[in-house]
Amino acid sequence: MKLVSEILDISTRGILINQQDSRSIGVREGDRALVTNLKTKETVTIQVAVTETLADVGTAKISLASAENLGIDAGDEIEIRAAPRPESIEFIRKKMDGGRLTREETSKIVSDMTGNILSPSEITAYITAAYINGMNMDEVEYLTREMVASGDKITFSKRPVVDKHSIGGVPGNKITLISVPIIAASGLLIPKTSSRAITGAGGTADLMEALAPVSFSSSEIKKMTEKAGGVIVWGGATNIAPADDMIIKYEYPLKIDARGQMLASIMAKKMAVGSDTCVIDIPVGAGTKVADEKEGQVLANELIELGRRLGIRVECAITYGGAPIGRNIGVNLEVAEALRILEGGEGATSLIQKSCAIAGIALEMTGKAAPNKGSDLALELIKNGKAHEKMMQIIDIQGGDSKIKSGDLMFGSFTFDIPSPCDGYIISVKNRDLIDIARLAGSPVEHGAGLHLHKKPGEQVKRGEPLLTIYAEKEWRLTQAIESARVSRPVLVEGMLLSRIPKQPME
Amino acid sequence: MKLVSEILDISTRGILINQQDSRSIGVREGDRALVTNLKTKETVTIQVAVTETLADVGTAKISLASAENLGIDAGDEIEIRAAPRPESIEFIRKKMDGGRLTREETSKIVSDMTGNILSPSEITAYITAAYINGMNMDEVEYLTREMVASGDKITFSKRPVVDKHSIGGVPGNKITLISVPIIAASGLLIPKTSSRAITGAGGTADLMEALAPVSFSSSEIKKMTEKAGGVIVWGGATNIAPADDMIIKYEYPLKIDARGQMLASIMAKKMAVGSDTCVIDIPVGAGTKVADEKEGQVLANELIELGRRLGIRVECAITYGGAPIGRNIGVNLEVAEALRILEGGEGATSLIQKSCAIAGIALEMTGKAAPNKGSDLALELIKNGKAHEKMMQIIDIQGGDSKIKSGDLMFGSFTFDIPSPCDGYIISVKNRDLIDIARLAGSPVEHGAGLHLHKKPGEQVKRGEPLLTIYAEKEWRLTQAIESARVSRPVLVEGMLLSRIPKQPME
Repeated sequence: MKLVSEILDISTRGILINQQDSRSIGVREGDRALVTNLKTKETVTIQVAVTETLADVGTAKISLASAENLGIDAGDEIEIRAAPRPESIEFIRKKMDGGRLTREETSKIVSDMTGNILSPSEITAYITAAYINGMNMDEVEYLTREMVASGDKITFSKRPVVDKHSIGGVPGNKITLISVPIIAASGLLIPKTSSRAITGAGGTADLMEALAPVSFSSSEIKKMTEKAGGVIVWGGATNIAPADDMIIKYEYPLKIDARGQMLASIMAKKMAVGSDTCVIDIPVGAGTKVADEKEGQVLANELIELGRRLGIRVECAITYGGAPIGRNIGVNLEVAEALRILEGGEGATSLIQKSCAIAGIALEMTGKAAPNKGSDLALELIKNGKAHEKMMQIIDIQGGDSKIKSGDLMFGSFTFDIPSPCDGYIISVKNRDLIDIARLAGSPVEHGAGLHLHKKPGEQVKRGEPLLTIYAEKEWRLTQAIESARVSRPVLVEGMLLSRIPKQPME
Repeated sequence: MKLVSEILDISTRGILINQQDSRSIGVREGDRALVTNLKTKETVTIQVAVTETLADVGTAKISLASAENLGIDAGDEIEIRAAPRPESIEFIRKKMDGGRLTREETSKIVSDMTGNILSPSEITAYITAAYINGMNMDEVEYLTREMVASGDKITFSKRPVVDKHSIGGVPGNKITLISVPIIAASGLLIPKTSSRAITGAGGTADLMEALAPVSFSSSEIKKMTEKAGGVIVWGGATNIAPADDMIIKYEYPLKIDARGQMLASIMAKKMAVGSDTCVIDIPVGAGTKVADEKEGQVLANELIELGRRLGIRVECAITYGGAPIGRNIGVNLEVAEALRILEGGEGATSLIQKSCAIAGIALEMTGKAAPNKGSDLALELIKNGKAHEKMMQIIDIQGGDSKIKSGDLMFGSFTFDIPSPCDGYIISVKNRDLIDIARLAGSPVEHGAGLHLHKKPGEQVKRGEPLLTIYAEKEWRLTQAIESARVSRPVLVEGMLLSRIPKQPME
């Protein structure tokens, strides 16, 4: 049937037609239609929405994305007819019914997903089914390969190409800013793509952005890495494994992180940037994604096996994730803490040790360091200034100011000290509550916002001494962060009153 | 944060904001925001979409539905802030993780679904999880009760109130047009709500619409039923169990019909119209929803148990669904076939017998007929003209022409006979192919379109005699229906060439 088009200025793809027309065409809401631009004769498949009032009979409202795809302007005539159901829906049904997907079936699902043939609901059904019924290693491998195939792939002529990854969930984990320049300073290539904070106080891409631009194409990443040895860029700006980004987007509202998809997600990014050697940091403990060391070992073995199938050597480091890494949380606070270590080798022991341990594994895997000597070499590359020099080179090549010093990073001028309510030793700190306080103070959007932890577990404190200092760029944000800290009490001191009935805010 | 609103003329609910604003607010695509109309101070929860280009920083594009909900006009200022995740998502996660939902959890999911708090993707995740992990009878009961609570409920002062339902999947199943007037003619109340065709050639509501309007509110349904004894209306026009309609809408793209949701769907509609006595027809056989009699018995027991929990007496009839009921498929063709039987008791034996059997069970359950005498009484009510008189009264009260005769219904003027390719007996007819032919001919949108089956299984045919006649209102539709019939060969004659290599269309 012929309809006259109107353009709808929205981001989702779709075509909105009157109920009466939908019945004549023989499509229902959620069906797909073949829409032909009658000027160009080009045809695309678009999902149909049906309305009784919002589109007149004889007209079709086409979303901007779909209209651009078809080269349609307002007033143009289109031909619309029912399209067959995409085959990929049968494969989603197969997964819902407990089946195992083949490479070809996975390929069809992924290409229909990135081609906007599948709707958000259908993609969610796939993700939900894979979450409930699980994926075996064959299926995970297929998904990883299809994620890689969905976007750009970088190939370096020089080898080895190193990558690192952290499973996440630990606040203040700025080790990438230290370990990447160490690895690059040793003469290895490391094209590191990172994410922004989703529910955290700052992802590595958010931190790096305080120093230099982070949005680059895959060919720019390749060129910069070949020149400087390493980069630290935002993965979301590239067209690397876009199918992975889509899956993460649809997992987000359900707060799921299905094992199979997580494995595929990690390894697809590594494979697509051309990495052949990979170190993966698996923090375990309360508040992290991995409950304990045993579960961490299972995950490590899965990552190693998946890497083997994909031609990537993987080693994993199971680390303690029950407390923040270093003492600062928030963009400029974390960046300053990392730069200070690179500048002179001074700073929180937990941060220096972990950064050197992770970098050291890469140095050992690639033969840059002898077995068990990787961490020592990493520390040496910090102490002799090579890692700092490399970091400045990376900042420079990404278009940042390579003269920057840790002291140049500004912290919010509104500050507040949370004092210890009593004498005693620190029992524990609550990662999630610290993150929430930093976010309420404005992190990661406001770079000066965050917190500094004066005391970590095992340390002694006297009544009235500050447990943590909150920084904010806006007074109202400081107020709400203080309120949150008073209620959640993120740092527990032995001997502290844990609750009082009736309940009162902490003194 | 404050934003200036623009109105987006689309049917889905949502608010589209710039990525930069989304980061300041602390929401991501798919999150919910609390949006306050700064004129009225009214606040509603709306799902957020994020764009880099389609909304300027400082502006928010609000969908028409959400804007009307908030009383917002273009240019109005709104306040927007991050909303907590709805609790119902935790319950969906519970179902994804194999848990059993309580009444309260089910209630929260259903109310957030109908209240547009849950997104289509989240509703799909719930449906997918319930499909994969199944629901026990407690969960089905809770879902049924919540579906009823989601909309209007009719209460009659007179009892019993009868209802009937057919599980569907059988073409030409116009028995409601015969059994409802029989039941009403016996003095019982039967407020029958029906559906339109989804993938069939005509639902009961589509058929009835050829005789009278079918869209009424629940209070109109009550009044009309009290006056005429019965009605045959479209369930989709009422506000009866709207949660059920939503679930069906989201099941549709995945072509699933999960058992628990199907049970709840059937019984919620019955309970909401105030029915206390219910006859359910379960057709079994190839092409129906129920594979065999054994599976039909399991389903029957589940329906009876669910009815018991809800205070509805249920009896089920397992019927043969392997061939069409009667000989006509398509709106006017089916209506004419049903009216002809009511007018004089003449017509296809399968149709008369099945209609009387179903009506007869209701007559026995309510004491209108002695045990095993229901079918006889039903046939008597056809023969003595009472059922016809009642049908005309129902047509009249719904606003149709009560003088209508079966001969008044026009069939498409473009017709074609599909001849038998050889002498022999009919082995089988293929339901799905017959439906496809009728749909291609224009049914149910074009009332005159459809087909008449000259021969049914077991009947003898001579070469060249017509197996079926196709009717269409438009010549091109007739052509495509003939093409389909030639390829699918829906009526198989013993001795017929089943395939020929290389493949050729049927002579």
